[in-house]
Amino acid sequence: MNNDLILLGHGSGGRLSHQLLSELIIPIISGILASVQNDAALLEAIPGRIAFTTDSFVVDPIFFPGGTIGSLAVHGTVNDLAMMGARPLWLSVGLIIEEGFSKADLKTILEDMRSAADAAGVSIVTGDTKVVPRGKADKIFITTSGIGAVEHSLEIHGANAQPGDVIIINGTIGDHGIAVMAGREGLQVSTEITSDSAALNGIVATLIAEVGSELHVLRDPTRGGVATTIKEIAQQSAVSITLQEAAMPIKPAVRGVCSILGLDPLFVANEGKLLAFVSATAADAALAAMRKHPLGLNAAIIGTVSPSPAGRVQMETLIGGMRSVDMLSGEQLPRIC
Amino acid sequence: MNNDLILLGHGSGGRLSHQLLSELIIPIISGILASVQNDAALLEAIPGRIAFTTDSFVVDPIFFPGGTIGSLAVHGTVNDLAMMGARPLWLSVGLIIEEGFSKADLKTILEDMRSAADAAGVSIVTGDTKVVPRGKADKIFITTSGIGAVEHSLEIHGANAQPGDVIIINGTIGDHGIAVMAGREGLQVSTEITSDSAALNGIVATLIAEVGSELHVLRDPTRGGVATTIKEIAQQSAVSITLQEAAMPIKPAVRGVCSILGLDPLFVANEGKLLAFVSATAADAALAAMRKHPLGLNAAIIGTVSPSPAGRVQMETLIGGMRSVDMLSGEQLPRIC
Repeated sequence: MNNDLILLGHGSGGRLSHQLLSELIIPIISGILASVQNDAALLEAIPGRIAFTTDSFVVDPIFFPGGTIGSLAVHGTVNDLAMMGARPLWLSVGLIIEEGFSKADLKTILEDMRSAADAAGVSIVTGDTKVVPRGKADKIFITTSGIGAVEHSLEIHGANAQPGDVIIINGTIGDHGIAVMAGREGLQVSTEITSDSAALNGIVATLIAEVGSELHVLRDPTRGGVATTIKEIAQQSAVSITLQEAAMPIKPAVRGVCSILGLDPLFVANEGKLLAFVSATAADAALAAMRKHPLGLNAAIIGTVSPSPAGRVQMETLIGGMRSVDMLSGEQLPRIC
Repeated sequence: MNNDLILLGHGSGGRLSHQLLSELIIPIISGILASVQNDAALLEAIPGRIAFTTDSFVVDPIFFPGGTIGSLAVHGTVNDLAMMGARPLWLSVGLIIEEGFSKADLKTILEDMRSAADAAGVSIVTGDTKVVPRGKADKIFITTSGIGAVEHSLEIHGANAQPGDVIIINGTIGDHGIAVMAGREGLQVSTEITSDSAALNGIVATLIAEVGSELHVLRDPTRGGVATTIKEIAQQSAVSITLQEAAMPIKPAVRGVCSILGLDPLFVANEGKLLAFVSATAADAALAAMRKHPLGLNAAIIGTVSPSPAGRVQMETLIGGMRSVDMLSGEQLPRIC
């Protein structure tokens, strides 16, 4: 029996499970003593409405430039809560581990989760660990769920885009997808390309404080990229959206890799970006507020909303033409998150 | 492209993902329209404390006598909330699906989740779907998280077992583990052996209404079985526990299979059982209340709590000897839940 590897018995619920929990998992990610663990976490009351979300992470590779599956899982769930304008409070973590996975790698991932949670101001309060036989999973999958407090009465959701709104993004597009792909293929593309994976609750709080009810939609363009997310919002809100290609922030290295590989950066995943729809009168204030935040230094207005035709998205290209934008069709880059 | 199978593109976040969501997943399990989906569910306020839990399910086979991975995932999370004395309200569902999985099987599993949720009185309010390439997962893994309302001020937790308490179980032991193993091996053991997978929130509510603060600990003996769970509680509460083998409810067919295969039923998983620790004065009332409930017809007092030595568990055997009981060591039956 190799003491450095995860064994089937670590998922049995018996003695090995208790050892793994009390020696590795709980001290790193929860800070709650193993001796007071119960079937569920008991949490203080939240006054007001609750936001609740879940995401499973199967990213390949599990370590990539700019992050790990652990930080990604925390950021992804924190961001889903933040996109409702909620204040993220508590996370749960479900680990599915392949037999033979390295304990050292698990430790690195758990430490990364804890750092990401601390930085975002959330606590990991409950969890579960399963182990499946070799070949029945790919190293490790992580499912994080989150609870947030909705401390405002604003209507921030995908069906609330309004004609006249401008669309702001907080920075460059495509960084996460290209970084993961580079990590997977072992490409030494450029040190400039790292995942943008980050918790967006701070910049969202700044934005809400600055423009309040002038903020209509928030969404993070993850799988499917900016194009798919914008198309979703156009359909949910029954509005027409026009994007400006020239205004789209993108790193030259990301543009270069996309160009070589035939990928459209508009469909490449981001993990630290948000799209904010704000009324035109509040656009300058929103943009200025975002640019003052470390995660919004490259914020830009990338499009506008008009009343019709409902559900249409088009992009004015660099050479002045109009191109239709639809959702991602098929799978451009599998296992990006 | 085979229209009956799950493709990588169904996990892309793009058009195929939207199709799968709006045609199959959302209509069956949530009843929320795809058009109003957001990154997180927005839920009404809960007055008072909140219980929060998560569990990943990797059971093999995914269809077994008495249930599916879908009903199991709902029951498991509902029960974890119920074991805190909470009223389960909302569930999230994270699906990790292997490319090539049958849509028909997915539909069956989702329908089973919905039936189980309806029967337990909970709503599935948010979810996520990922698809991994063939051979990178085993058919389907499901992670359910749950939120419950704690509507009492009782102290029900694993550290609250008290000397003098009696231990009640609501029915026969080992049914789930043996049913899953029989399903896996294709054994035609007996039609009597089916999983006990069930939602326990109803019987818990009955118990709380009947004995209130005389109820000290509730826990469901899943992975690791009754033995492991009892040992955990003995350690958390620093008490000594004595079980009575003669009092342990067990179906003859389960006992027979365990005997043939050399399995100890005390370590075999249950998915519709609870262990209730109640003060001796309330034992008769608790037992009577449980026996009136459909999930407690075979309820029995199986042990007692004494002050010391702390953490010790022993069992008085059928022939009158005393046997030491410890946690499950290693893995008796992998992938039981």
